Amino acid sequence: MPDISVRGCEMPSSPIRKLTPLANDAKARGVKVYHLNIGQPDLPTPQKALDVMKSIDRSVLEYSPSSGFLSLREKLANYYSRYNISLTPDDIIVTTGGSEAVLFAFLSCLNPGDEIIVPEPAYANYMAFAVSAGAVIKSVPSSIETGFALPPVEEFERLITERTKAILICNPNNPTGYLYTRAEMNQIRDIVKKYDLYLFSDEVYREFIYTGSPYISACHLEGIEENVVLIDSVSKRYSECGIRIGALVTKNRRVRDAVMKFCQARLSPPLIGQIIAEASIEDTAEYSAEIYEEYVARRKCLVDGLNRIPGVYSPIPMGAFYTVARLPVEDADDFCAWCLSDFDYEGETVMMAPASGFYSTPGLGRNEVRIAYVLNQTDLKRALVVLEKALEKYNSLKK
Amino acid sequence: MPDISVRGCEMPSSPIRKLTPLANDAKARGVKVYHLNIGQPDLPTPQKALDVMKSIDRSVLEYSPSSGFLSLREKLANYYSRYNISLTPDDIIVTTGGSEAVLFAFLSCLNPGDEIIVPEPAYANYMAFAVSAGAVIKSVPSSIETGFALPPVEEFERLITERTKAILICNPNNPTGYLYTRAEMNQIRDIVKKYDLYLFSDEVYREFIYTGSPYISACHLEGIEENVVLIDSVSKRYSECGIRIGALVTKNRRVRDAVMKFCQARLSPPLIGQIIAEASIEDTAEYSAEIYEEYVARRKCLVDGLNRIPGVYSPIPMGAFYTVARLPVEDADDFCAWCLSDFDYEGETVMMAPASGFYSTPGLGRNEVRIAYVLNQTDLKRALVVLEKALEKYNSLKK
Repeated sequence: MPDISVRGCEMPSSPIRKLTPLANDAKARGVKVYHLNIGQPDLPTPQKALDVMKSIDRSVLEYSPSSGFLSLREKLANYYSRYNISLTPDDIIVTTGGSEAVLFAFLSCLNPGDEIIVPEPAYANYMAFAVSAGAVIKSVPSSIETGFALPPVEEFERLITERTKAILICNPNNPTGYLYTRAEMNQIRDIVKKYDLYLFSDEVYREFIYTGSPYISACHLEGIEENVVLIDSVSKRYSECGIRIGALVTKNRRVRDAVMKFCQARLSPPLIGQIIAEASIEDTAEYSAEIYEEYVARRKCLVDGLNRIPGVYSPIPMGAFYTVARLPVEDADDFCAWCLSDFDYEGETVMMAPASGFYSTPGLGRNEVRIAYVLNQTDLKRALVVLEKALEKYNSLKK
Repeated sequence: MPDISVRGCEMPSSPIRKLTPLANDAKARGVKVYHLNIGQPDLPTPQKALDVMKSIDRSVLEYSPSSGFLSLREKLANYYSRYNISLTPDDIIVTTGGSEAVLFAFLSCLNPGDEIIVPEPAYANYMAFAVSAGAVIKSVPSSIETGFALPPVEEFERLITERTKAILICNPNNPTGYLYTRAEMNQIRDIVKKYDLYLFSDEVYREFIYTGSPYISACHLEGIEENVVLIDSVSKRYSECGIRIGALVTKNRRVRDAVMKFCQARLSPPLIGQIIAEASIEDTAEYSAEIYEEYVARRKCLVDGLNRIPGVYSPIPMGAFYTVARLPVEDADDFCAWCLSDFDYEGETVMMAPASGFYSTPGLGRNEVRIAYVLNQTDLKRALVVLEKALEKYNSLKK
């Protein structure tokens, strides 16, 4: 039997992969599991988008252009203009989810062995796409003590080698919910400019910013327009993760030309998804406002509740719908597994993502978990009660 | 400005990329272009599938499992059983089109520098996915003189090195329409076994076989069950290329485990596409029969017509909906461009794919074109008249 590839061996597994069978077993035992572990919003897709899907009047579900429908790219350009980001439809390439945008950015910009500096904790799949492209992620640790603020410039410069080709940020951040300040974005801009790096900026959570702080996009940074590759997706903002529509946005024509060759090879992004995305973008101000209010309330509910549990600490996340919290345990991997395998409180338990999966520096985040607030407030409150009981019991058993 | 990657530079362009702007210009001049160049069937998607799409009753268009819905994988297993291919749903991973199945097969099975032997002419995007994965395609030329039969075993063995890791076939073949015989499939099996190679077998055109010859799937070959990775797609058989649903099928568990890590990184295949694909698979025997009869008639119409044009030769394709024809010109690239830029017959012209784009051996296929029969017979007949006139005029100008 021939071997599988080195890449196939090195690909990281999902941070919750080991927990999934435990959760299934718990459910099979009749235990209700509160899923605090996932990034799938429970909120409805815009009704208008669902209606458009049902009224599609086509007899052949054919290929669409490899770069995506022009009409969708026009609507996206208009959408970005609301954020003072000035783009033409030509600057925008529609991808199969934000995932494909990350992969194609890496394949187009990085050679095998090239290095990307990424503040950690970071979205675990960046590592997977780096392995796919043969690139190497070098992590700059950020810390819960400083609320996951951007590490100082020296921490970046310490990692720069002749193979450093890019910085990758996620803003607002998954998993921490951190929103980079103007000063931090300027710091990134200066490093990018000084070393002539790419700046890959994943901004799929821009709709979800809860403080008065401004949203500074990588596209707002002056003097590095040709270095910026924006990663985007409609998944989170319209609660339509399943349609697999994202975008790669750059003013760098050479990058777009390279990306387009990868796009042509895979022929086209999903047809129906593009039609749904297009309907989601326009005339959904009311939808977005309702969704936003709901997340504001959930965030308060979750963060207040977490910080009331003895020994638990959560910084106040400024964006996205996650927080990374510190728990009064030594090994959050073990605790999260135990919650599913050995615990229930009145027939209920919680599933959380151990934060260790979001760090690549060994040992970091051992006592942290990522919690997503994609449940309604009633369930969130109940999940907090269950979490508190779980911590009490777990720690009483350990003593 | 940072460089783009070597991969980004090496990625091949589509064989018709240079022709597309010429075709657009021709249309802008009011010339009608018969598209003989594309693999997008004009036939309708099954009505049942369209109906199911319109009756989707979901309020959240959420992620689906990374491996695809179990219900779809069950229906696919049942579908394969009609071809005497015995599979469980676990052997099947749903992918975003057949394209993603090829890419994930390469990423999972091949290391950078590993070699894949491919009979040429071959689907041009295999080269693109090989470049994406850092793998190297070694071509075994087949020839129009022998109707594109499989080259003899010595031609394969001549190419085998310590880096050879796989053979890739497309059966029935795009671009030639050739269907491998039992003897040829046994020859492939023996090489695969002798050198312990992977056999990647792209069989997306299995519905379209027009002779009494049996369809021998790679999955029918005994003794290499762990070596075979089947590439599949619903695109062509249900005329739904736009939904982006394919499959990677293998009994090799280690390969599946590796492929699943790539699948988890991209989260999930398209949700709506899976629902449409599922509806397409069952209760569509009547649909398939109608489609089949139509292609049988078109094939006869096209191949008879081509062989009646002085100097043109087309073998009789046994499957798919393409043929590679030899034209009485020296440089089919030049001729195909000229048809769009400098010619019309009564306000009409033809667009064909020069076959050179399907060969990687320089100089091969220079006087050949790939013609797809995805037009109705009225249009096909008219396109043949236009082609004949174009050849007459082109050659009179050259003399």
